[in-house]
Amino acid sequence: MSSRHVSACLLVAALAMPATARAHGPDTSWNPRPTVERILQEAVKNPGAYRKLEVLCDQIGHRLSGSAALDRAVRWAVEALKVDGLSGVRAEPVKVPHWVRGHESLALLTPNHERLPVLGLGGSVGTPPGGLEAEVVVARDEAELKALGPLARGRIVLFNNAMPAYSEEKGSGYGDAVRFRWAGARMAASHGAVATLVRSVTAHSLRSPHTGNMGYGDAPRKIPAAAVTVEDAERLDRLFRSARAARRPLPRVHLVMGAETLPDAPSANVVAELPGREHPEEIVLIGAHLDSWDVGQGAHDDGAGSVTVMEAVALLKRLGIRPRRTIRVVLFTNEENGLAGGKQYALTHAAEVPRHVAAIESDSGGFAPTGFGIEHLDKARVPALVKTLSEHLPLLAPAAGQKGVIRLFPGHSGADLIPLKKAGVVSMELFTEGRHYFDYHHTHADTLDKVNPSELARCVAVMAAMAYLIADAPGRLDRTH
Amino acid sequence: MSSRHVSACLLVAALAMPATARAHGPDTSWNPRPTVERILQEAVKNPGAYRKLEVLCDQIGHRLSGSAALDRAVRWAVEALKVDGLSGVRAEPVKVPHWVRGHESLALLTPNHERLPVLGLGGSVGTPPGGLEAEVVVARDEAELKALGPLARGRIVLFNNAMPAYSEEKGSGYGDAVRFRWAGARMAASHGAVATLVRSVTAHSLRSPHTGNMGYGDAPRKIPAAAVTVEDAERLDRLFRSARAARRPLPRVHLVMGAETLPDAPSANVVAELPGREHPEEIVLIGAHLDSWDVGQGAHDDGAGSVTVMEAVALLKRLGIRPRRTIRVVLFTNEENGLAGGKQYALTHAAEVPRHVAAIESDSGGFAPTGFGIEHLDKARVPALVKTLSEHLPLLAPAAGQKGVIRLFPGHSGADLIPLKKAGVVSMELFTEGRHYFDYHHTHADTLDKVNPSELARCVAVMAAMAYLIADAPGRLDRTH
Repeated sequence: MSSRHVSACLLVAALAMPATARAHGPDTSWNPRPTVERILQEAVKNPGAYRKLEVLCDQIGHRLSGSAALDRAVRWAVEALKVDGLSGVRAEPVKVPHWVRGHESLALLTPNHERLPVLGLGGSVGTPPGGLEAEVVVARDEAELKALGPLARGRIVLFNNAMPAYSEEKGSGYGDAVRFRWAGARMAASHGAVATLVRSVTAHSLRSPHTGNMGYGDAPRKIPAAAVTVEDAERLDRLFRSARAARRPLPRVHLVMGAETLPDAPSANVVAELPGREHPEEIVLIGAHLDSWDVGQGAHDDGAGSVTVMEAVALLKRLGIRPRRTIRVVLFTNEENGLAGGKQYALTHAAEVPRHVAAIESDSGGFAPTGFGIEHLDKARVPALVKTLSEHLPLLAPAAGQKGVIRLFPGHSGADLIPLKKAGVVSMELFTEGRHYFDYHHTHADTLDKVNPSELARCVAVMAAMAYLIADAPGRLDRTH
Repeated sequence: MSSRHVSACLLVAALAMPATARAHGPDTSWNPRPTVERILQEAVKNPGAYRKLEVLCDQIGHRLSGSAALDRAVRWAVEALKVDGLSGVRAEPVKVPHWVRGHESLALLTPNHERLPVLGLGGSVGTPPGGLEAEVVVARDEAELKALGPLARGRIVLFNNAMPAYSEEKGSGYGDAVRFRWAGARMAASHGAVATLVRSVTAHSLRSPHTGNMGYGDAPRKIPAAAVTVEDAERLDRLFRSARAARRPLPRVHLVMGAETLPDAPSANVVAELPGREHPEEIVLIGAHLDSWDVGQGAHDDGAGSVTVMEAVALLKRLGIRPRRTIRVVLFTNEENGLAGGKQYALTHAAEVPRHVAAIESDSGGFAPTGFGIEHLDKARVPALVKTLSEHLPLLAPAAGQKGVIRLFPGHSGADLIPLKKAGVVSMELFTEGRHYFDYHHTHADTLDKVNPSELARCVAVMAAMAYLIADAPGRLDRTH
């Protein structure tokens, strides 16, 4: 905290503090440095998070909402948090969407016959049982779709919108490119298409399809939607354009998708606590999502986040660190295809929401940490929050990635925290070195070997330290002005 | 050529030269610079090779020996070479091994149930029709296999030998790591295994299985052999070691392979010529292989080489360049799983072999060129060959890759040239920037988009220029001493 804000915070803290707490002595004596240093040292020498991730990935595997594997993951997390000695460990019931992929295949029929890798998009309807055969027309963006006009009718529209390569300045470009995955089916259906294929949202591919969620919105019909690889999007694009130019037959494919949406399934958020020593009723939430897509091992997304927050509290417990306020771990269910876990958490804990001092999600992969996103419903309050937190960030630098600093990035927080953010909770997200995140995201390749144990340990260090800083600060972060 | 060698070459050339040739004037006047400059300029401004590769990849696709696609590729290449105005265009019959993959699957059964990507190895037998279920034991090398002892009996041996990351100094490490792909089945069978799985031979994977050829040698039994991804080799290794340590059940898998070897199939080498103006009977062969594995598009391996040599002669023809000697293009069949094309070429052309001045293969991918490997049966002759060729290499530098030089690498030449090399022909291979070659090699990801049109054009430039330099030099390269 800056000196200007220390006084404001102390004022707030003093007003909020019960007599017993004040009796501990003047709060100006608060010096988090020795404790943060212990946290960082313990985190980087302890492989606990990676050990947990190995069990989650190798013994349980991927874990889509509604799957038996997610049920196993919930039971495993409850047990692991109990073994780590946390309090109030429980699975809080959540009803989740239950989409199942079923059998899938995609075959190119014209000009040559070849099987193409494919992954249906979460929430898509399936094809008729025997599949669906049609010519493919290609649009690189909305304008090209419009220009196709009647050519889209009765055909499959492929959206071949390229996600740019990662850059330090602009980041991944995911947010822009993903619109076709989400809304492509609606857009294609409104032009009379019978199905849609979407270029996988990635800048790096080894013939790797990327799944992800989609929605039909106000589509006139629900048509099947699937992701093809960058390679096949490019190929179909070439074939489409050369066939049109030469008046040859358009590329033709056969798509089979056994996808269906079953009735909502029972699932759970896993919750555990390290009770606060002075204000156990005040909560600093650190969370991640335990569910994953039904491919790969959900290692970076979001196994890494799950074990980061689990290990962060385990580490504080192990070191006997008991901050002023409660640190609550929440492993949300159903982030990937519904956000039911985040919504249910806010409902179940509605009475407690005003006592959430901050909520931090880890859902950017287990790469070396670079900082924290931070948001508030009242955007005008963000600069003060940033200023308050910034004072202690240099303490976290030893655990940072290549740039050697931990920064704050206003305007970002975790998806599971949206309901809390809307209710006025200070919402944050652990940021990591993102260069390779979207190489693996939602693919068969999101596997344990992609996670570097040392980088994951740094995530634990930074998450535990930030949770401690907010939970132990004399003043409530959310009352910073 | 160095000055010391010019005189030797001219002496040889003078002896070999008919009167008509000598009448053209003194050979000391030979200055290849203007022609090489024209070749390089034309190559880099003409997209001919990439256009050819687009047809080969997108209209024909992958083309394993014995497949209808390879037959189509042979017919396409004959037509394309005729269109380019070459002489003596023909398909020379070759009988090739006919291995077919059939249906394949691999499923992990213990500790969790999951489908794993797999590619059977070329030449492998299949499993029984219902597949084969067994526990997996893991060896990282020969010593670990030996240490497994009776544990291998009745189980599947996984060879988890890691190929190191590419380095400028050491190259790819492929040559060392590939021994388990080739001989793993024999090694595992000799320890009583029922099948073998091999870690894909690559240093970079997005859950990408790499196929390739294998052989049984003196194996006591022919057992099925398949490649798993780096990710799954690592996972099965972790599961094996943790299960042994904790006395839990070993990982268990179900492997299905429908592979079989059918009777040899008819195929062909495609041959075409740019006849020499003085010594049409003397041949500079430039070759590549038209066949590929039955995955991806065979774009780098070896579609790129095929179109490089096709376009190199087309370019010379287009520019009206007619060197002293004949340049012969050969598109070999069956490099990948038998080398039948290279063997048959040497047999069919046995009488001509002594008139092969040099043979150059392009089979290192269509990346920016770095130089040429060069070999001779009589190793003592290589330094003189290198010295002779070196004089003109600076002319090729404008088409080189990042380092800006074209070098010679003694001790390497193309696999299809082995029979010619054994018969005493100077054998060479176009080298390219190899950093990413084994990311795509023998995978679903060896697709057109991985080939950079500008880099491919540089391959054409360097190949055409080198063929011209050898074919037009006053002296025969192979008589350099």
